[in-house]
Amino acid sequence: MNYTIRGAIVPGCFNQNEGYESIDVQIVDGRIAAIGSGLEVQGTAIDGTNKLLLPGFVNAHTHSSEMWQRGSIPPRPLELWLAELYDFSPLDPQHIYLSALHTAAETLLTGGTCVVDHLVLIPHREIETIAAAVRAYREIGIRAYVAPLIQDQSISTGIPEGGAEREHEAFPRTTEEVLAWLTEAIEQFHRPDEGICMMPAPTGIHLASDALLKGCVELSDRYDLCRHTHLLETKAQKLIAEEKYGYSAVEHLKRLDFLNERTSLAHCVWLDDADIEILAATRSTVVHNPLSNLRLGSGIAPILKYRRAGVNVTFGCDGAASNDSQDVLEAIKIGSMLHNVTDLDYREWITPREAIEMAALGGAIGLGMADQFGSLTIGKQADLVLYDLTNLSLLPRTDPIGLLVWGRPTQVVHSAWVAGRQVIAEGQLTTIDLAHLQQELFRHSNWHSNRSSPQAMAAESHYRSVMGLKP
Amino acid sequence: MNYTIRGAIVPGCFNQNEGYESIDVQIVDGRIAAIGSGLEVQGTAIDGTNKLLLPGFVNAHTHSSEMWQRGSIPPRPLELWLAELYDFSPLDPQHIYLSALHTAAETLLTGGTCVVDHLVLIPHREIETIAAAVRAYREIGIRAYVAPLIQDQSISTGIPEGGAEREHEAFPRTTEEVLAWLTEAIEQFHRPDEGICMMPAPTGIHLASDALLKGCVELSDRYDLCRHTHLLETKAQKLIAEEKYGYSAVEHLKRLDFLNERTSLAHCVWLDDADIEILAATRSTVVHNPLSNLRLGSGIAPILKYRRAGVNVTFGCDGAASNDSQDVLEAIKIGSMLHNVTDLDYREWITPREAIEMAALGGAIGLGMADQFGSLTIGKQADLVLYDLTNLSLLPRTDPIGLLVWGRPTQVVHSAWVAGRQVIAEGQLTTIDLAHLQQELFRHSNWHSNRSSPQAMAAESHYRSVMGLKP
Repeated sequence: MNYTIRGAIVPGCFNQNEGYESIDVQIVDGRIAAIGSGLEVQGTAIDGTNKLLLPGFVNAHTHSSEMWQRGSIPPRPLELWLAELYDFSPLDPQHIYLSALHTAAETLLTGGTCVVDHLVLIPHREIETIAAAVRAYREIGIRAYVAPLIQDQSISTGIPEGGAEREHEAFPRTTEEVLAWLTEAIEQFHRPDEGICMMPAPTGIHLASDALLKGCVELSDRYDLCRHTHLLETKAQKLIAEEKYGYSAVEHLKRLDFLNERTSLAHCVWLDDADIEILAATRSTVVHNPLSNLRLGSGIAPILKYRRAGVNVTFGCDGAASNDSQDVLEAIKIGSMLHNVTDLDYREWITPREAIEMAALGGAIGLGMADQFGSLTIGKQADLVLYDLTNLSLLPRTDPIGLLVWGRPTQVVHSAWVAGRQVIAEGQLTTIDLAHLQQELFRHSNWHSNRSSPQAMAAESHYRSVMGLKP
Repeated sequence: MNYTIRGAIVPGCFNQNEGYESIDVQIVDGRIAAIGSGLEVQGTAIDGTNKLLLPGFVNAHTHSSEMWQRGSIPPRPLELWLAELYDFSPLDPQHIYLSALHTAAETLLTGGTCVVDHLVLIPHREIETIAAAVRAYREIGIRAYVAPLIQDQSISTGIPEGGAEREHEAFPRTTEEVLAWLTEAIEQFHRPDEGICMMPAPTGIHLASDALLKGCVELSDRYDLCRHTHLLETKAQKLIAEEKYGYSAVEHLKRLDFLNERTSLAHCVWLDDADIEILAATRSTVVHNPLSNLRLGSGIAPILKYRRAGVNVTFGCDGAASNDSQDVLEAIKIGSMLHNVTDLDYREWITPREAIEMAALGGAIGLGMADQFGSLTIGKQADLVLYDLTNLSLLPRTDPIGLLVWGRPTQVVHSAWVAGRQVIAEGQLTTIDLAHLQQELFRHSNWHSNRSSPQAMAAESHYRSVMGLKP
């Protein structure tokens, strides 16, 4: 199907910091074929009057199956939160399928057209888990980077030793087994031409051996894949790197050749200046997850330092057990202002126009796809979103992008296209039955409160001791 | 009209930290007449199945007419932001009326049933301004505390002198004139039995003489009114207090008898321990405005310190030019987790149940109305909200209050009552024509970008110098 959007409002092309224009855009064979005034209608005509047209955003870090625990894990730092998350993770592929659909639906309905799913796996059913998520993303039509969350060390190694003599259970899969099924998954599911890409994505240096990290580098080189991992989300992870290597986690990833221009790194809260230089030199991308960093008390990522150093920064929602939503506009809003309380010179604060460029083009850069999507450019794939500016939450009329980024837009996406396929029309998903999805999510869940997590309870006293909290 | 809500989900009555119950609630003559199981239907029956029933929240600090500038003021600290705000404030009562309706609509649609409007006035048309806002609040049916924003010093005094010899224009009204029209407004509009209350509400110590502050104390004592003001929102305001008094702003307000159990104080970002003791001793209420504090880079209010000291804390959206939305649930979400990055012991972090109590009962306490609304209690006025738990943004089913507070609920309010009057039914406002309001907001505004503010430009160089920013 081809489309011609007529008379949409777009930010001025010739001066990125000023003004708006009204233009027509032709979408032909999945790509942006023409941008201009008075274009001939190709395919279906879309009325762009009083609508803002922007490139789709990238939800550049999430964990879709955490949806099953959203709203439920009590206030806790990452290390104890994670223990509870693992105690109650879903264990059947139907749940994985539904939460991937749900994650994609919320992402699409808030301006995202691409998701990076750092997918939590069902132990010993890894391929089935991935298949369920991939099926969901194909059905709903979002561009998806599926990054199976892999590790070869048990969760208890994710808390610093602090001089204690702790024993850790062996991880149920060997490093070789993990790399073997990951290779199989890449062969089976990596279909970049169809909008589904696989990424080697270790949990992080705190839960991965060097053999696993090297295996990921080797696989991504062999199959021409992007890489992804958590990096220094918490102070505890910084301590672990010091214990493990005697130097910084970033330096270690550099030595292993993990970092390059197609590596995206979630969180990056606890980096020092030398670390930041390494990210700049390797052209790695930082994925800022502001809501999760607040919810878990991880800290405030030094985003302006990254930008000053020339490091590409984009935004993620993080999984719904630590946010607890998949609203990309919320991540952009909080992510583009959180640093204002730590960096006092307002002349460097992120503007709404910069924020949307970080969320769209910045996301594409981190995936090595800046030549394919992320901006309104002739020849790029048509990953586009049309926002209804007559919605109550975008009124009264002021600066359209300011309203979108700083407000709290609610049901404002009128239309969305992924590689030219229209996945939202008149505010409704066209590819799936949302009411049916809601019924399924309802049917597969139950209200509850105050669960008790054995792993979190077991870990708490050591955690408090090593982090210097009173007993 | 009377109502009986049947089978709604409420947090467990007997143990505030655990579980949920399904109950019936009778609303008779504006009050909660009965709570129990199998209650006889009085008036209209409302199906509470799969719906969460909570007391209405208080949007405890906003400035309604800032709606006209939402999304438009560039990233700037309060003092320069304010200069731009004043350069472009609306100047006719019809705008005031529309933005009050809009503010109330967004508040109601996100769980608020009461608003404290620190109302920016049209110079020399103060009574007309207030009349327009009051008309809007009566029409839409929200409980409203109208707090005209008064001062008797010009805006340039809101930046510290820093040893410079600056000249300040005289404020266009004398202190006596301000207090005279305020008295007239109180006589004309203060109707507590009808849900409209007036509050003496100086902008803050940085723009008010002692005569004005004392006049507010005297008026509130004479008419039995609550008081409201901004307090130490920015570091600049702390410096101004030192320049003006040689001691803290809080100490000064205490000496003037401004602080009591019906005084609410917006922001409170820059208080020290002695200040906090004064708030506790005077039983004053802190209104936390987390989004505005981030947007303007004001800082992170030490909310957990206030709670430890026994100070009542509640939430506000602040005006839409510094947030830029009036979504009460967003203020509760960010406000109940922002401190997690400064206060590391997670055992003190605010839980979702604590957050909703702060937003409902905490709001009522700050207005001296804890015996009248703010909880689901027999005999209290029926300020109640029913949330649809089958909405996509509240699925899958986990902990209902966790989903509501930590998620990003979108169009989840099914019904709302203010003093027993149903103002939302089936997700729609019953009292006003929302589509017509949208048309009016559209018609009275224009898209724009990059305005230039003469006052902000004039103030910038002195501001940067006194705040230690590089020239």
